[in-house]
Amino acid sequence: MGYSIVQKILASHLVNGVLKQGTEIAIRIDQTITQDATGTMAYLQFEAMGISKIKTELTVSYIDHNTLQTGFENADDHKFLQGMAAKYGAFFSRAGNGICHQVHLERFGIPGKTMLGSDSHTTTAGGLGMLAVGVGGLDVAVAMGGGSFYLTMPKVVNVRLHGSLPPWSTAKDVVLEVLRRLTVKGGVGKVLEYGGDGIKTLSVPERATITNMGAETGATTSIFPSDEVTRYFLRAQGREDIWRELAADHDAVYNEVLDIDLNDIEPMAACPHSPDNVKKVSAVGSPDVDQVVIGSCTNSSYLDLMRVAAVLKGRTVHPGVNFVIAPGSRQVYAMLAKNGALADMVLAGARILECACGPCIGMGQAPPSNGISIRTNNRNFKGRCGTASAGVYLVSPETAAAAAITGKLTDPRVLGAIPLVEIPESFCIDDSNILAPAENSLVVEITRGPNIKSLPIAEPFPGEIAGPVLIKVGDNITTDHIMPAGAKVLPLRSNIPAMAEHVFAPVDPSFVQRAKEAKVGIILGGDNYGQGSSREHAALAPMYLGIKIVLAKTFARIHKDNLINFGILPVTFTDPVEYDRVEQGDVLEVNNIHACLKDQLDLEIKNKTRNFVFKAHAQMTSRQVEILMAGGLLNFTSGRQ
Amino acid sequence: MGYSIVQKILASHLVNGVLKQGTEIAIRIDQTITQDATGTMAYLQFEAMGISKIKTELTVSYIDHNTLQTGFENADDHKFLQGMAAKYGAFFSRAGNGICHQVHLERFGIPGKTMLGSDSHTTTAGGLGMLAVGVGGLDVAVAMGGGSFYLTMPKVVNVRLHGSLPPWSTAKDVVLEVLRRLTVKGGVGKVLEYGGDGIKTLSVPERATITNMGAETGATTSIFPSDEVTRYFLRAQGREDIWRELAADHDAVYNEVLDIDLNDIEPMAACPHSPDNVKKVSAVGSPDVDQVVIGSCTNSSYLDLMRVAAVLKGRTVHPGVNFVIAPGSRQVYAMLAKNGALADMVLAGARILECACGPCIGMGQAPPSNGISIRTNNRNFKGRCGTASAGVYLVSPETAAAAAITGKLTDPRVLGAIPLVEIPESFCIDDSNILAPAENSLVVEITRGPNIKSLPIAEPFPGEIAGPVLIKVGDNITTDHIMPAGAKVLPLRSNIPAMAEHVFAPVDPSFVQRAKEAKVGIILGGDNYGQGSSREHAALAPMYLGIKIVLAKTFARIHKDNLINFGILPVTFTDPVEYDRVEQGDVLEVNNIHACLKDQLDLEIKNKTRNFVFKAHAQMTSRQVEILMAGGLLNFTSGRQ
Repeated sequence: MGYSIVQKILASHLVNGVLKQGTEIAIRIDQTITQDATGTMAYLQFEAMGISKIKTELTVSYIDHNTLQTGFENADDHKFLQGMAAKYGAFFSRAGNGICHQVHLERFGIPGKTMLGSDSHTTTAGGLGMLAVGVGGLDVAVAMGGGSFYLTMPKVVNVRLHGSLPPWSTAKDVVLEVLRRLTVKGGVGKVLEYGGDGIKTLSVPERATITNMGAETGATTSIFPSDEVTRYFLRAQGREDIWRELAADHDAVYNEVLDIDLNDIEPMAACPHSPDNVKKVSAVGSPDVDQVVIGSCTNSSYLDLMRVAAVLKGRTVHPGVNFVIAPGSRQVYAMLAKNGALADMVLAGARILECACGPCIGMGQAPPSNGISIRTNNRNFKGRCGTASAGVYLVSPETAAAAAITGKLTDPRVLGAIPLVEIPESFCIDDSNILAPAENSLVVEITRGPNIKSLPIAEPFPGEIAGPVLIKVGDNITTDHIMPAGAKVLPLRSNIPAMAEHVFAPVDPSFVQRAKEAKVGIILGGDNYGQGSSREHAALAPMYLGIKIVLAKTFARIHKDNLINFGILPVTFTDPVEYDRVEQGDVLEVNNIHACLKDQLDLEIKNKTRNFVFKAHAQMTSRQVEILMAGGLLNFTSGRQ
Repeated sequence: MGYSIVQKILASHLVNGVLKQGTEIAIRIDQTITQDATGTMAYLQFEAMGISKIKTELTVSYIDHNTLQTGFENADDHKFLQGMAAKYGAFFSRAGNGICHQVHLERFGIPGKTMLGSDSHTTTAGGLGMLAVGVGGLDVAVAMGGGSFYLTMPKVVNVRLHGSLPPWSTAKDVVLEVLRRLTVKGGVGKVLEYGGDGIKTLSVPERATITNMGAETGATTSIFPSDEVTRYFLRAQGREDIWRELAADHDAVYNEVLDIDLNDIEPMAACPHSPDNVKKVSAVGSPDVDQVVIGSCTNSSYLDLMRVAAVLKGRTVHPGVNFVIAPGSRQVYAMLAKNGALADMVLAGARILECACGPCIGMGQAPPSNGISIRTNNRNFKGRCGTASAGVYLVSPETAAAAAITGKLTDPRVLGAIPLVEIPESFCIDDSNILAPAENSLVVEITRGPNIKSLPIAEPFPGEIAGPVLIKVGDNITTDHIMPAGAKVLPLRSNIPAMAEHVFAPVDPSFVQRAKEAKVGIILGGDNYGQGSSREHAALAPMYLGIKIVLAKTFARIHKDNLINFGILPVTFTDPVEYDRVEQGDVLEVNNIHACLKDQLDLEIKNKTRNFVFKAHAQMTSRQVEILMAGGLLNFTSGRQ
């Protein structure tokens, strides 16, 4: 019986457990990445562990989120992160050097290696054959300290791509089709491993678009083989030496198979307000468009933007459309600036933003009230763009460019012949904006701005809890609902007390007040609670507010891990129908928690307000139970429990 | 007796009065400009006048301030302004097309014409031989409606430039020298008219740098002749047809003369926290630098940035410096993108921002806490950069580039031979991001976002006032103190009730509460009260809060006009020593106001708290008295009084 790529990488990195689906395994982590919105916390956590040097093969600290810098907080964070990287042994990719996932693909990713990143789209590196997983910052900090990464052995789904894409159909449309089929929770507990004869027609940046947005299915990660296409890309990046072949055995066994015929793929759009609300562009109609945004870690590669430039050349943006483009990296930017493509974009009427995450995370470029925005991003949750009343459609760069020109959501096939753009034989290589660690860490001074507050740390988990349900929410609640991002809140990321003032703000602005009054409380969620980004602030800030239990129908993977990491107990209804019997304000009581968790027994929860008892279970490994008991991973790792 | 250029332009546009210094004159306005932070109010005011078409020769509505768009407000404002321009007959320069003053110089300015702009740096067009004055938005709205502009006939100062600049000395250093000599109030009541044999060595963009920052002296405006240098620039812009010669008569008579030998100019810096705190760079020392910002309407021309690119080529930014560049216009951006200079900047490590005002107005790129920022801007008031504890030095682009490379404030002469950069024979001309007015205004629909609130309008001015001194401030209070700009407040500009919550926030956050409680109140100011920008919000928001009188030692011109325009009485102490006898909280009473103002008599002000009487006078023309009595210019113009 042969092995899948996933099994091969896991086997070669296995520290604990056996590769049996559903059981807990621990693996060695080769590389880690952080970005600035999650990185300050991760480095504070690393520092709190008291380890003198980062122990991974490679760790990179990227600045790409908080680049508008509307107050001192961001520049202070960047300065802090620069100092920490120099001191503890990380590379530091400066503000302006680009989006972490794009830069990592270009300059650092290595086929067959494992990587953790404190960003849900860390999966992008799967396009290069890495097993790259998005996690909370604390998991990254532990890996930086040499700790293993624990996960439940996922199902491996073989996504077989057949044939080749028709003109104007793109990698983005492929992953939108995957989302249409799997939905935003269809990937939970799975890794999507791509194969089939169609993959050889997809370049590394195109594969990376697919693995990037695999995150939206809830999958642990997505991965492509490393083949001659991979080798070509790495050679063009001057890194052929780190190439190695990586392929599934011909008789590899998978848990599931998904077949996609590339020839059938048409231009697709994820309609408001969910990445899985996917339709063919031709079937959506042609709503008038207020804004078009091209960029983000999903679609800002050189290849993407050269195709956009080719579409735009000699054309003019529609007068009703505000059109912005943010190149994915300094490499992309410099190449477009050198070869004239950037000038073509500017002359077509595009506004060129700094290469950073920008509008994708609501960091600027909020559309007008009730506006329609066409974006190449990966998420279109309501309000994430900065305008609660706006509707965002997620599309390919080509479809976005067509909308910019016509002023309507437009199937790009109406533009006629497609301009031919190929991946170059060599990229512009200049790593001068990536700073190496200091040779002598003793001389590095760490500057801490006034917004960088120390970490709140939970107490050991109590044996019984009684408290009110502070909020009851529906299905598919995202981390954007729990702990909003955007230009107003993101700059506060290093300051949990300040962040905590915004918990559930988009859903119920009175939540924080209730939580403060109750001191101890419970959150009641529906299906797929906590989908979306990796931000551990969605656990850390509720913990700070006294949340002890999240009771839900089901959880998204990263968020569930984050809850445990910060000492909040995630439990699911044994019978989901009980969800309907519990209301906001009900006081719940749970006793005998320690014993139930250790013995993997159902918890009995008493609804004191309505006077009935129901059951819930924790689905935690024994290691996770120990972490929770300790009050979180930091206590557990430091042996402080 | 011959005439100065100023006299010639005024004479050819005179509608009322005689050109006698100190008397009120009215002139016809040929062109007007607005930007988006002041424009929404100006267009609301124009709309309130009930005039169906703009009556100037040319009116342009620019979008350049609120381009970060961290909430729906900005995009809504931009959409509103686009609609208003189309409907009422203005050209509309879209977001991303560049900074109003830079674009106007390139594409619209005409020697010998008069212009009003709702931005204090409207004076930039003086580099092209325009008589261009920064005013409040309401004055612009009146001019758009065909109304004359009333001003007190200024003194004309002949600034004679001799010789030519040494290598690495620049136009910026010239105007910093002017500021060193005149200070931030030395230009009040004056126009600076440049002449002398040295001017032929200065290109139009260099002249524009000088006239731009003349605003910081408090001067009404600055102006250069229109000569062969002007003709060359206009030819390169494809606009030679609108060139006309404009020169002072050889026997022109001036009120004052200022001689500057260009050969003596060295690299200069305005040190924190005032544009007139000017020293030679070589005399400042070499503080470590956290940030370098190149851009703003002062220094973001093609010529400026080509010089920067030449300095940067092949060099790398210092690891301690965050270095951002914002090109001044889409024309500049496209040319740099075409000729490789932008790639040189990116590869040197510069972060390239959208072409807009950006960091100059605190719209992003706040430096770190206690940071040192080197900028090519025009203002370095404390906190304007977004970080209250930071210090900003204003320098030339060349000096800024030197700091970016060395990591310290550095005299650029240490860099060795200066790269030769000349103004090009032809610029890249593409006006597709400037929208012409609609042919049929009836079909234009105006969209008003929820943040666009109707204008508060004052009541006719009362005959007596009694109220407390709500705040007592010192000298040189800027409009940034009164009504802060920056990323948090600027987006609110279309909503006076929301803006009013921030009045005097940087000086005394409790001011607003006191004002609300008092309902009627008085502001006590020192010398040069209200210097800085043209923002009428610094009058409009206090008016909304019930301020009736501002009592100061002296006033900055634009702000004084704005106060009158919005029904607030600006009065100065007859004996400035009385300033020391009045304290915050004192209740003042003034009676018989109407008669005193009409008869130009001193007002008698009774300090009821301390029981003494002192005198103050209004220095208003009889027309201004009528405006004030009516409750402001809008009432006066509409005949609503």
